[in-house]
Amino acid sequence: MVAKTNDDVLLVEANLDDQTGEGLGYVMEKLLDAGAYDVYFTPIQMKKNRPATKLSVLINPATKDAITTLILAETSTIGVRYQTWHRAIMQRHFTTVTTPYGPVQLKVATYGDLTKQTPEYADCAQLAQQWHIPLMTVYQAALVAADQATQEEN
Amino acid sequence: MVAKTNDDVLLVEANLDDQTGEGLGYVMEKLLDAGAYDVYFTPIQMKKNRPATKLSVLINPATKDAITTLILAETSTIGVRYQTWHRAIMQRHFTTVTTPYGPVQLKVATYGDLTKQTPEYADCAQLAQQWHIPLMTVYQAALVAADQATQEEN
Amino acid sequence: MVAKTNDDVLLVEANLDDQTGEGLGYVMEKLLDAGAYDVYFTPIQMKKNRPATKLSVLINPATKDAITTLILAETSTIGVRYQTWHRAIMQRHFTTVTTPYGPVQLKVATYGDLTKQTPEYADCAQLAQQWHIPLMTVYQAALVAADQATQEEN
Amino acid sequence: MVAKTNDDVLLVEANLDDQTGEGLGYVMEKLLDAGAYDVYFTPIQMKKNRPATKLSVLINPATKDAITTLILAETSTIGVRYQTWHRAIMQRHFTTVTTPYGPVQLKVATYGDLTKQTPEYADCAQLAQQWHIPLMTVYQAALVAADQATQEEN
Amino acid sequence: MVAKTNDDVLLVEANLDDQTGEGLGYVMEKLLDAGAYDVYFTPIQMKKNRPATKLSVLINPATKDAITTLILAETSTIGVRYQTWHRAIMQRHFTTVTTPYGPVQLKVATYGDLTKQTPEYADCAQLAQQWHIPLMTVYQAALVAADQATQEEN
Amino acid sequence: MVAKTNDDVLLVEANLDDQTGEGLGYVMEKLLDAGAYDVYFTPIQMKKNRPATKLSVLINPATKDAITTLILAETSTIGVRYQTWHRAIMQRHFTTVTTPYGPVQLKVATYGDLTKQTPEYADCAQLAQQWHIPLMTVYQAALVAADQATQEEN
Repeated sequence: MVAKTNDDVLLVEANLDDQTGEGLGYVMEKLLDAGAYDVYFTPIQMKKNRPATKLSVLINPATKDAITTLILAETSTIGVRYQTWHRAIMQRHFTTVTTPYGPVQLKVATYGDLTKQTPEYADCAQLAQQWHIPLMTVYQAALVAADQATQEEN
Repeated sequence: MVAKTNDDVLLVEANLDDQTGEGLGYVMEKLLDAGAYDVYFTPIQMKKNRPATKLSVLINPATKDAITTLILAETSTIGVRYQTWHRAIMQRHFTTVTTPYGPVQLKVATYGDLTKQTPEYADCAQLAQQWHIPLMTVYQAALVAADQATQEEN
Repeated sequence: MVAKTNDDVLLVEANLDDQTGEGLGYVMEKLLDAGAYDVYFTPIQMKKNRPATKLSVLINPATKDAITTLILAETSTIGVRYQTWHRAIMQRHFTTVTTPYGPVQLKVATYGDLTKQTPEYADCAQLAQQWHIPLMTVYQAALVAADQATQEEN
Repeated sequence: MVAKTNDDVLLVEANLDDQTGEGLGYVMEKLLDAGAYDVYFTPIQMKKNRPATKLSVLINPATKDAITTLILAETSTIGVRYQTWHRAIMQRHFTTVTTPYGPVQLKVATYGDLTKQTPEYADCAQLAQQWHIPLMTVYQAALVAADQATQEEN
Repeated sequence: MVAKTNDDVLLVEANLDDQTGEGLGYVMEKLLDAGAYDVYFTPIQMKKNRPATKLSVLINPATKDAITTLILAETSTIGVRYQTWHRAIMQRHFTTVTTPYGPVQLKVATYGDLTKQTPEYADCAQLAQQWHIPLMTVYQAALVAADQATQEEN
Repeated sequence: MVAKTNDDVLLVEANLDDQTGEGLGYVMEKLLDAGAYDVYFTPIQMKKNRPATKLSVLINPATKDAITTLILAETSTIGVRYQTWHRAIMQRHFTTVTTPYGPVQLKVATYGDLTKQTPEYADCAQLAQQWHIPLMTVYQAALVAADQATQEEN
């Protein structure tokens, strides 16, 4: 039987119209280093004809204070806002398949009856670089290998 | 006296950086077929220089499980997040006006003292196609007809 | 017989990842004051995870030097790029219609057999403010008045 | 030996700040019906705090007049602008592979030494609907079948 | 000791696919005049190939009814949705520094150990206009003056 | 006397609706490694409700063939389009200033009478990391140091 995972995640946001893109690229890295689950930017349009960026950070609620201080220190905003989201997350484990270019990890995600297999991006990118071939070639080879592994199991 | 409607709606979201636009166009249709109130995409920017899409689905909370399964099955995400929003919705009824090109339904929306009339897009589009005239011509004719109907009532 | 107008327009662009939105709102006004036909911003995504803005300015080719200097002085970019576009522009004249809220100018645009009438935004906005009514109410009243004027002519 | 194709394409654009999204969805279909190669929308930000849409249409230069008239008739713009782009296009032919769910067409594109195979979206979508399975399942099955066909050839 | 401020803010949103950008620029001003803390637009993509705009308004919860009525009156939407966000806001006070071009207000924001100083945009813009110099020149002069003031204090 | 630089740049573009964001992040790096001047993504909306990305690459016209092959190999597109832009580029040289945190390079750009000084992002980021202080603190210190250097020269 496949269990389902449910948990809460805190979304921290700020609208930034007095920060450069250069500075925002820097803060994305700092936030990921500080343990944020995910960081993303949304283009928005603010008053006085200002193109701006909404900073969104999904975090473990336990890191709220550290992340808040980091955003206030590294960006131009004078405030952040918080909101809790519930989540449904698929169960995950990893398995390895062999392609003509080398081994690639597969992420296997399950939720009730549902199963999805996805080749790990980092492995595919590394092999593509090593063999001087397109990323897509490695990615498709990993899907083919995953299919064969599934056939043999059944 | 005009009543006001208030209800709750569930917003389901996922950030997608490993799905194609082709696949996202497909999933929008599946979600609307499955009864979602509304589906929309927001362009976002994720880590590692990835342009991505935020999928947002507004649903009846009663359809949460079916919609979750559909998103997990048809997209590359391994998780979705949920949030409840309260809503204020105008009361609506429909009436029909006669334009030189044929009948057009008007959506009449009321909220307290406020009344808005909007020609139905589908009717205008169908007449524009039939008469080989611009959509805007039919739309404006419907507004003129609505205005005359209102004059005659008063 | 309705003449068609054709002319050339110069598009000047720069990608900005080290400028704030605040500064960009300011430069839009300066460019319009300097005679640019149109100024618009497009959200783009640049290297190193930087959300950025593409500045686009449509100008009369005769103002190229002044506009270039203004962009280089007021933005963080160290270069701009140029391209010439051909245009097809509808012939325009103005006429006035009377609504229950006051007179509104109509822009009448023609191109071959085609004629479009559009209420002037500034007039509608001014009457909406004056009567404390929605902008849309004035706009639709202007369309109805335009329709009546056309009926009477024919 | 694989030939390369080069040709010119005309890009027609207009900035729209006085048109609804509803009307723009309609005009996209009309333009595709009229033979446009491609139609796409870009979110832009215009003066006076107006969120707007840039309409871009890639066409055969021979259809310039018909497309111009269609845009001027169906949108609120009073002008369009034109620009010629050169193109490098891969040679294409189609082949069919057999998946457990039925036949799927593969688009095979070549350019010099380079070959790419892509399962046709429409075929995959149709089989996914028919078998009530995820689109991705059919798509991956088509990639596996394409891989086997390539193995057998060599 | 520096106090921290925490409060709640209400986010009001609506997706608009049947409103023009012209009308949205107008409604942004009306909402700011009505006391909204912040108004911003996000480009979104809705069903039937419609480019659309999400209107977001951050308000004091006490103004909920007035803002709702304004949005329903001035836009094409027939409903709005609400959500409460918690906020962490830096403490602020203002100080004035002297630049070669005249006095500029500095916003001084503090949060725990953290202090940030930002030249007021409006002051810098006004001096830039008056002296016919780039905005950035005034802005940087204000930062230099702020730095000197801080040196003298210590 | 300050010379002005003018040259031509080739813009290469492709619309991508069947590529993942993950793959696009990868291709941006490959293009920069291959010598592209600049690579940027624009969110666009294509037919059949597909959110998509426009890939734009600014290159030296001499690298056209290599860049074309790279794009066709690493992305899902079967064609690219080209256009030449003229450019006006400011003259640049570098100078070093001393901040309390260490030396920072300044980019000094000139165009006719106009001079701009910008602290190098990479230097500021490296010092900020080293001293565990906000990037903005280093950036502002570099501006102050640049101002002092200019004072002493005059």
